[in-house]
Amino acid sequence: MIEAAVTAVTADEQDPGEDLGGGQYASDCRARVAFDVLSNRWDSVIVYILGESGPMRPRALLARIGGISPKVLNEALRRLEYNGLVVRQAYAEAPPRVDYSLTEAGTALLVPIRAMGAWAGRYTEAVLAAQDRFTSP
Amino acid sequence: MIEAAVTAVTADEQDPGEDLGGGQYASDCRARVAFDVLSNRWDSVIVYILGESGPMRPRALLARIGGISPKVLNEALRRLEYNGLVVRQAYAEAPPRVDYSLTEAGTALLVPIRAMGAWAGRYTEAVLAAQDRFTSP
Repeated sequence: MIEAAVTAVTADEQDPGEDLGGGQYASDCRARVAFDVLSNRWDSVIVYILGESGPMRPRALLARIGGISPKVLNEALRRLEYNGLVVRQAYAEAPPRVDYSLTEAGTALLVPIRAMGAWAGRYTEAVLAAQDRFTSP
Repeated sequence: MIEAAVTAVTADEQDPGEDLGGGQYASDCRARVAFDVLSNRWDSVIVYILGESGPMRPRALLARIGGISPKVLNEALRRLEYNGLVVRQAYAEAPPRVDYSLTEAGTALLVPIRAMGAWAGRYTEAVLAAQDRFTSP
């Protein structure tokens, strides 16, 4: 997404005015994919927890997160696996055991996720105060 | 959101097993607000461009972004203003002029946005390759 924005900036500077509705951003599907991965709230939480704790079983993730249903957790894990951010490992034990861990791409995602967390910790009050100014009479 | 996850982790370690569905994360509305602000794709693009270019008029933003309609841009700007991330400045000129610039909270958002962009630049290929492995026969 950010790369797409940079491209649009360059095009605009070279040919000002020609860029209205041109869609450099809209057509950059690669960047959109990455941004979608990052913008899912539960997916980010799961990546964050796996980054803190290492490989975990689904049941342990359920307990750790709180407020997520098994169905929603399962959907998030499938999506993360589909996007190559976590790997599912099945162990031939009795009873069978499954855990999830981060890939290299998933581990690297901890950098922006932590930056988002730091921002949220510092500026959530400012956001709420701004919202209050709009909603108060 | 990240703060909520940390809280949940601590609670779980103190009282393992008691946390299933407990909703520490779900109930942390403050962190959710901040995460929603960050997860909107267009909002992030606008913050990024204002960070690169300084205050801009809506028409210039339209030209710079590409692929966004005036209506969608306007909605994004209102949302960013509501959340205290941009400020709208109207100038008493003829014809009247309006521009938008980042607040302190909006400027600080550039740190996680740039981290997201760096991740996307490096790992989008890996994400697409993982997706291909799932969809190919």
